[in-house]
Amino acid sequence: MRTDGRQTNQLRPVTITTGVNKYAEGSVLIEFGETKVICTASVEERVPPFMKGQGKGWVTAEYSMLPRATHSRNQREANKGKLSGRTMEIQRLIGRALRSIVDLQALGERTITLDCDVIQADGGTRTTSITGSFIALALAVHKISQTAKMPKFPITDFLASVSVGVIQDKPMLDLNYEEDSKAKVDMNVVMTGSGKFVEVQGTGEEEPFSREELNELLALAETGILELVAKQKEALGDIAGRIGG
Amino acid sequence: MRTDGRQTNQLRPVTITTGVNKYAEGSVLIEFGETKVICTASVEERVPPFMKGQGKGWVTAEYSMLPRATHSRNQREANKGKLSGRTMEIQRLIGRALRSIVDLQALGERTITLDCDVIQADGGTRTTSITGSFIALALAVHKISQTAKMPKFPITDFLASVSVGVIQDKPMLDLNYEEDSKAKVDMNVVMTGSGKFVEVQGTGEEEPFSREELNELLALAETGILELVAKQKEALGDIAGRIGG
Amino acid sequence: MRTDGRQTNQLRPVTITTGVNKYAEGSVLIEFGETKVICTASVEERVPPFMKGQGKGWVTAEYSMLPRATHSRNQREANKGKLSGRTMEIQRLIGRALRSIVDLQALGERTITLDCDVIQADGGTRTTSITGSFIALALAVHKISQTAKMPKFPITDFLASVSVGVIQDKPMLDLNYEEDSKAKVDMNVVMTGSGKFVEVQGTGEEEPFSREELNELLALAETGILELVAKQKEALGDIAGRIGG
Amino acid sequence: MRTDGRQTNQLRPVTITTGVNKYAEGSVLIEFGETKVICTASVEERVPPFMKGQGKGWVTAEYSMLPRATHSRNQREANKGKLSGRTMEIQRLIGRALRSIVDLQALGERTITLDCDVIQADGGTRTTSITGSFIALALAVHKISQTAKMPKFPITDFLASVSVGVIQDKPMLDLNYEEDSKAKVDMNVVMTGSGKFVEVQGTGEEEPFSREELNELLALAETGILELVAKQKEALGDIAGRIGG
Amino acid sequence: MRTDGRQTNQLRPVTITTGVNKYAEGSVLIEFGETKVICTASVEERVPPFMKGQGKGWVTAEYSMLPRATHSRNQREANKGKLSGRTMEIQRLIGRALRSIVDLQALGERTITLDCDVIQADGGTRTTSITGSFIALALAVHKISQTAKMPKFPITDFLASVSVGVIQDKPMLDLNYEEDSKAKVDMNVVMTGSGKFVEVQGTGEEEPFSREELNELLALAETGILELVAKQKEALGDIAGRIGG
Amino acid sequence: MRTDGRQTNQLRPVTITTGVNKYAEGSVLIEFGETKVICTASVEERVPPFMKGQGKGWVTAEYSMLPRATHSRNQREANKGKLSGRTMEIQRLIGRALRSIVDLQALGERTITLDCDVIQADGGTRTTSITGSFIALALAVHKISQTAKMPKFPITDFLASVSVGVIQDKPMLDLNYEEDSKAKVDMNVVMTGSGKFVEVQGTGEEEPFSREELNELLALAETGILELVAKQKEALGDIAGRIGG
Repeated sequence: MRTDGRQTNQLRPVTITTGVNKYAEGSVLIEFGETKVICTASVEERVPPFMKGQGKGWVTAEYSMLPRATHSRNQREANKGKLSGRTMEIQRLIGRALRSIVDLQALGERTITLDCDVIQADGGTRTTSITGSFIALALAVHKISQTAKMPKFPITDFLASVSVGVIQDKPMLDLNYEEDSKAKVDMNVVMTGSGKFVEVQGTGEEEPFSREELNELLALAETGILELVAKQKEALGDIAGRIGG
Repeated sequence: MRTDGRQTNQLRPVTITTGVNKYAEGSVLIEFGETKVICTASVEERVPPFMKGQGKGWVTAEYSMLPRATHSRNQREANKGKLSGRTMEIQRLIGRALRSIVDLQALGERTITLDCDVIQADGGTRTTSITGSFIALALAVHKISQTAKMPKFPITDFLASVSVGVIQDKPMLDLNYEEDSKAKVDMNVVMTGSGKFVEVQGTGEEEPFSREELNELLALAETGILELVAKQKEALGDIAGRIGG
Repeated sequence: MRTDGRQTNQLRPVTITTGVNKYAEGSVLIEFGETKVICTASVEERVPPFMKGQGKGWVTAEYSMLPRATHSRNQREANKGKLSGRTMEIQRLIGRALRSIVDLQALGERTITLDCDVIQADGGTRTTSITGSFIALALAVHKISQTAKMPKFPITDFLASVSVGVIQDKPMLDLNYEEDSKAKVDMNVVMTGSGKFVEVQGTGEEEPFSREELNELLALAETGILELVAKQKEALGDIAGRIGG
Repeated sequence: MRTDGRQTNQLRPVTITTGVNKYAEGSVLIEFGETKVICTASVEERVPPFMKGQGKGWVTAEYSMLPRATHSRNQREANKGKLSGRTMEIQRLIGRALRSIVDLQALGERTITLDCDVIQADGGTRTTSITGSFIALALAVHKISQTAKMPKFPITDFLASVSVGVIQDKPMLDLNYEEDSKAKVDMNVVMTGSGKFVEVQGTGEEEPFSREELNELLALAETGILELVAKQKEALGDIAGRIGG
Repeated sequence: MRTDGRQTNQLRPVTITTGVNKYAEGSVLIEFGETKVICTASVEERVPPFMKGQGKGWVTAEYSMLPRATHSRNQREANKGKLSGRTMEIQRLIGRALRSIVDLQALGERTITLDCDVIQADGGTRTTSITGSFIALALAVHKISQTAKMPKFPITDFLASVSVGVIQDKPMLDLNYEEDSKAKVDMNVVMTGSGKFVEVQGTGEEEPFSREELNELLALAETGILELVAKQKEALGDIAGRIGG
Repeated sequence: MRTDGRQTNQLRPVTITTGVNKYAEGSVLIEFGETKVICTASVEERVPPFMKGQGKGWVTAEYSMLPRATHSRNQREANKGKLSGRTMEIQRLIGRALRSIVDLQALGERTITLDCDVIQADGGTRTTSITGSFIALALAVHKISQTAKMPKFPITDFLASVSVGVIQDKPMLDLNYEEDSKAKVDMNVVMTGSGKFVEVQGTGEEEPFSREELNELLALAETGILELVAKQKEALGDIAGRIGG
């Protein structure tokens, strides 16, 4: 039994509230237990310099935590004058993951920027961000598609993410902060709605792990991600039917 | 009549939700119409170097907007590597205003940092931030006072802030973004619960203003601020009684 | 009586020396007592990106202190790698104030940058800078107008600034450094030659102030500013006659 | 057959030259084909602030490419004034991986910094860096152990790394730059000498991948890493016998 | 004949005004023709970390130009966020040159910082700065010596600097800006009052130069520097007698 | 006799290995004793903004040391976020020196960037860099000239550099680190193959120097540079014949 009473293969309560920002083309407040992230999707009718003239769009992400999202207050990165390695790593991951399920050709020459701002953190902020960003992205693409001509709906599949880890030799799903800090092995998995891997990032800093452990963790992640995709479908309503269409 | 149907001397609907952050010693989500700011108060048991050894505390503030708090997305200051002049000006104002109603001696050698993160902006983000920060500060000081010895409750008065401006020769209270961009004169007023000024910042960039206009604007601000103080009292409940005690 | 023997409503000796820089289109060394500022106006035949294509000009300001302008040496902002909040606040104020008396349409697509470099500081550096910048600006605009076609002389009014404050319950005009550090209320006022307010920035960090005190301070500021405008007229000679014409 | 004539499960020629720097406590020039990296290990008799007073050591890494390590010249990060996200991600990975096989307690209160400077890049710079850093680290630890008292030799296992990827549906080992840019799936694996995973980072940006593909890739990586460990043993000579002892 | 009517071996008019800053321990406004530099010497009773505990003092310099010191306005280095290579090179030169004639042991554990702020530039700003800084330094050291115990007066010799160059095959002394931009060879020489070299920096970017040319330039520089030292003596009055004593 | 057994007028063993980088248009590993520098020349078919439209090319240089090039590890400048004054001074010197022997008109509108990366440092890194860069530059220009039309071979002369210094009153050639730190006078000389000076930078921080000493040092430098030019000719083979042609 886990400290919050969950089974090893059980997600924390997931809450998805769409439309939380009146300006953004897509927005969502997503909660994995006490971890709360606002994801907004902003559309611009241009692409970054390195993508110009290819007739393709671009999807990118930025990630940040409010200073008091955590137990003790963190200094703002704007004050330090630079992003930490952790922040860069996470926002590169989110952008890369989302691009894997977007047909950039079908999107056309526009950029969608996903902003993931962590309001409160209790473990799993990057997986929560990816799962929420997917919804904001789908809402924004749907909105664009109502006025812009697109050869097809450019989102090719669902996408969600969850963490898994080994704690006292037991693989567990969706670690909260306390569990995360005790885990010997820590893995973040991003998967499509059709059950294929987009990212697998496993780390055994404290203790290396075997092929068997890896397999168990991946199986656990798959279960969680399929549940998350079901919640995404619910939150998206009719729009869900357009994805991969 | 104003575009949103208000009278010239009418505030936008004000909503105050306390306790929105599970880690912060004090926290509030404050809304002036569509302007929404999360204010958290974080307590540290030390003071900045320039305050050391004086037996006094310190209160400071930081201010930031989420990138999509506004109509079009703004670049993050963390990415630019520095704070804008506007951000610095606002956070200096918030800190200065709050310190005016704190007895730093009674607070003791600790620092309270108010983080004002604008989730959605529709004019008046600095006045909303000051008004909300006061509540977060009061909650945090109340919390400290339950375990720490303090000679007296260190908050000496209520404090709130509102904007006023002249639009088509009419003084108006609590401008939203659209009004703000049409105002010839723009003023932010910070006042105590006992009706004294802490900050008066009036600007007539487009058109200078007369002493009569200044007087009308200050009168309007006073009305609004007394209403805001009433809402602060309501939100603070029993704690309100300790202020200035 | 004040430490330097002045009456409460008396300015420090004001000295204005024009033409102190052989390259700048307009330049002045202005002294308010021991506060000494070199103001230069530099003209460029282009406008910043956000002003392009509007057929209008731009006026902006930068402010800096030499490291040893003050009692003890300050680190250069160029070494710190960024401007302080104080510097940004002041240079934003100077630029905003000057723009209020410039007809940007009449100026045409050019930028005038006012550099205010404080050689020695003894209180009131921002008000001295505004008062001196106005002269450098007028000189530069006059110079441009001798070769460029302008529909009218683009400076619409005089502009000067002074500080006022409350020290031991007495309102006083034009505070020096020692007075400034003892003032409970501190206010900077910028006014046009025709007696209208452009900026009113009053702060009661140590102690809030009443409407009566505010009124007394504004009256005092008005007196001082009219004297300063008289000195500006004298320094500008014939050019003074073109202003507001 | 691959463009350079290798089998799909064949490493590029690996060359390891130790002692290339006369000052560093451990140093190596490692080549995976045309990818060349100088790794130096520098020892300092102190630990970073966050590790102080725990009686434990620290191992960290920095990674950089010479500007012309690549086909076209890259701007130096020192000139840009900050590290790219890619650099930070790689150096965090190297440090984390090395710490997994170091008993920090046995190392004692000292820091070893691994500098991985890529002299020439042709794919796999991060895996080459990890494999080479391990050798520099072992040399440095051996050197320390000759004069310092250590309860045991603090390196607990061998550690090497290799990339694998899927190109035209074929899993391949140790991708060079040309192959890497055509790969649909790209994975970096770090493994101990005893065959356990330390890091698994697989990305399917272009195309998601199945569990079967993942399994094939991991098997291929394991083969390559065991070969690399054999080369490390050869390069370390007698010192190899102390590892994990 | 030169454009300003000087002989090839003639300095521009040199003006030295001491005591131009009421706070600095030593200050001077020095003019070489139209080049004008304010040099202040600031004393602090501590040394930088790398000098601690040696019982010796430190002398260092900073150099900056006001934005409109030159024909067209330059961006402030504080705005760029970093010093240019040229600035760093000059301030390193000034500091190094001054330290050559200071007995740091006799100075005792204090730091003197020379700030050279160029008010107007017309060639030779670094040589003017060195020549002026020497005076500010001597004034400051004299002031310290009146209250602090010093085993001897810590300035061991006079120090001045001048530029020389080859223009149309003619060696010339003390180049102004127009001459400097036409010079094929450009040299800055720093020399002691006793006629020894402290720095010789000659550059033939446009055209290399021969040993004969070098000798002629050095002879010319020596003449100029001896004249400058005479002016320094005059400006220092009685204090001059303490130098090298 | 010197600590490494050399005569006072003897260079350290010089080794030049060309073609050490497979991507760069010209590359060399140059060793002056234990000082080792990789110099690469990178060609771009464009010039920096300030050179545009003049039909001329540009040659520039960058200099860096690997963190462990020295006895103790130095922090990377990329981590500090800026270049040190020393680095800027050196790279400005290298670029300036190389431009003195390039006919920029004949080079045509292209930029050649010389990267000097110090792998190991034992004194004289700037002189080694200049001497090596010349070779990389010649190789790159030769390579360009095989496909691009050039009115003539744009390198007009050979160029090499060496350090000289006074140690215990004896002038010595090509100082190593240990000697450099004991030298009272330190001079870097850059000279053409035809025996003319390009740069003479002599510093007597510890002790000023006389004209006689200067003359002796320059004579010593000339000897060394002619030897270095002979080595450059050998390394360049047939290409040597094109220089100055």
